[in-house]
Amino acid sequence: MPNSTNKSNANPFLARQHMLFLALQEARLDALALNPGPSLTYLTGLHFHLSERPVIALFIANQPIRLVLPELEQAKLLDLPYLVHGYPYGEDPDKWAASFQAAIHAGGLESSRVGVEPSRLRLLEFRLLLQAAPEADYISAQDSLASLRMIKDTFEIDAMRKAAQIAQAALTATIPYIRFGISESELASELTLQLLRAGSDSEIPFAPIVSTGPNSANPHATPSARLLQPGDMLVMDFGASHQGYFSDITRTFALGDIAPEYARIAQVVLEANTASRSIARPGITAHEVDQAARTIIEAAGYGAYFTHRTGHGLGLEGHEEPYIRQGSSLILKPGMTFTIEPGIYLPRQNGVRIEDDVVITATGLESLTDYPREVIQLP
Amino acid sequence: MPNSTNKSNANPFLARQHMLFLALQEARLDALALNPGPSLTYLTGLHFHLSERPVIALFIANQPIRLVLPELEQAKLLDLPYLVHGYPYGEDPDKWAASFQAAIHAGGLESSRVGVEPSRLRLLEFRLLLQAAPEADYISAQDSLASLRMIKDTFEIDAMRKAAQIAQAALTATIPYIRFGISESELASELTLQLLRAGSDSEIPFAPIVSTGPNSANPHATPSARLLQPGDMLVMDFGASHQGYFSDITRTFALGDIAPEYARIAQVVLEANTASRSIARPGITAHEVDQAARTIIEAAGYGAYFTHRTGHGLGLEGHEEPYIRQGSSLILKPGMTFTIEPGIYLPRQNGVRIEDDVVITATGLESLTDYPREVIQLP
Repeated sequence: MPNSTNKSNANPFLARQHMLFLALQEARLDALALNPGPSLTYLTGLHFHLSERPVIALFIANQPIRLVLPELEQAKLLDLPYLVHGYPYGEDPDKWAASFQAAIHAGGLESSRVGVEPSRLRLLEFRLLLQAAPEADYISAQDSLASLRMIKDTFEIDAMRKAAQIAQAALTATIPYIRFGISESELASELTLQLLRAGSDSEIPFAPIVSTGPNSANPHATPSARLLQPGDMLVMDFGASHQGYFSDITRTFALGDIAPEYARIAQVVLEANTASRSIARPGITAHEVDQAARTIIEAAGYGAYFTHRTGHGLGLEGHEEPYIRQGSSLILKPGMTFTIEPGIYLPRQNGVRIEDDVVITATGLESLTDYPREVIQLP
Repeated sequence: MPNSTNKSNANPFLARQHMLFLALQEARLDALALNPGPSLTYLTGLHFHLSERPVIALFIANQPIRLVLPELEQAKLLDLPYLVHGYPYGEDPDKWAASFQAAIHAGGLESSRVGVEPSRLRLLEFRLLLQAAPEADYISAQDSLASLRMIKDTFEIDAMRKAAQIAQAALTATIPYIRFGISESELASELTLQLLRAGSDSEIPFAPIVSTGPNSANPHATPSARLLQPGDMLVMDFGASHQGYFSDITRTFALGDIAPEYARIAQVVLEANTASRSIARPGITAHEVDQAARTIIEAAGYGAYFTHRTGHGLGLEGHEEPYIRQGSSLILKPGMTFTIEPGIYLPRQNGVRIEDDVVITATGLESLTDYPREVIQLP
């Protein structure tokens, strides 16, 4: 990617912070209190390890960002392209409360409506906030944050497209290692190595899922010592990271000759994936995208074995809004990015999942992943 | 490692759960409510992705473990070597509360003293617990959990020794790539790749820190596009994982000819590291270990530039108890594992850190890391 593209987007943070304050105002929130994580990175570009030490960032309109953090992290606040005021503490946990109190007091948040992120905020920081501002109301700002982060700009979509290409290149490079007798975890390590070699950021989105046979019937299996065997389905679910943005792709392979029923569920899942990709466009609801895949799988008699939603949003997080699930009235808009990943899981037998990463365009859908979706026989 | 070693320790979980209930009783806690994470893995061997879906495990003496979880994770509860009762929910978030209520009610926890882990428990699960049992007291069980997890058994120490060896092998394999003109982030990717090739679990403990020049003066720097240059210090801080147990090692290199002051701080940090390793043994406090390094650095006039504690516990987590810091009265015992990692950071100039992983033995200390600690000139 040419440097100019990077530079033109070197400081999207002031604009994002401006949009945040509009969204907070609309939700009648006086402030936002964030733990380190993707939302903080989105708004500031800052990265922190989430450790035993509390870190909180307070966003309040027309004020500098107020950041409670360990002294040893202070260097991260140098040369930032926006105003930030640090409230550092040393190595004695007894000093944490004073830093929180100073930040809350300076921000005037003693009895405010403070937005929080329940799926990220830890009890550690929450209790320190409560202690500093017991009269404040702590209200989920998840919808406000999602409304910003769901709509990706061109820079973000380009990063995700590249992340998808890296993942696909890694899969291509891993195929030669797929043989009977190698274990799931060995294959997962090889795939991870190929993700890095293909150019992923060194922090990959999640540890690859490599599952075979009965393990493939567990959608969230951890790679095990089980050896690849003839007759197994092999599910590989993994992603790459590029400039902090993720891909997340699943392809399923047949190891040698498989039972006719497994070939059949593979075909059904492929049709379900195609149906959801065909229907998704601006104006359609997330429910309708889910239903398109579900209808195919139910009609084939496997409805009870499609145990999860059809997809989830993707970006700075492996799972984020929009969720592509039954009952969701969320209306798709251009710039939304998510997975389409129907699956059929026959308990104690085998499973199949086929997952793509897509972006809603002005008129329809672009799939960022295009690796062949058919269940190929290996080795 | 021979299979027999694994098998003899294939189910340490019942014993650990037994020890947990003793520790809870001592802390007058009726139960423990855990989010997915290292403590849950330690007690059960279970792994969950921490996602937007709530997961909680309730440990109550003389009851099965009660686990609220998404339906699609249920397969993880098959064939476990202890009793567990699942409270699954489907894809509709409105159903979460009912699963929490059912688990709390079955456990009889409506007005109990419930232990929690503040540095892990999210507001998402905490609010669902509160809703199901508003009369309960939620009390930090961090000390109870630490008292168990701090003392490693032979199996755990062997895993950590292997993780240290893998990290050192990766460093050896990465040395040839250290040259002027390569970027910090390229070098970090190469190091990550070598960690996997050397046999690390595919989920490494943390993204390696590779920092040079002014970035090396930031203890928690993120690898950047900065190119390695003559006169820089190069700090590499990274670890491997083996059977879920971590190593965490830092070595600092001099790139070409460095300023005399940088050579001096390198020597001071080495002496500080040696001093802490020499003093640590059963009966010594964590404070005294910290003080040993700090005294050396202060005497050299750099006390203000040693901005963090001397070390942290290591095991299933990158940072855990015991913390080796000023004021800690924690007394070292055999089986405790932690880092010794003094550093000196000259802001906007350069930094040096030298980090080892150690285990307290019956009579003293064994360093699991033994890669040469001297600051070597490269390339």
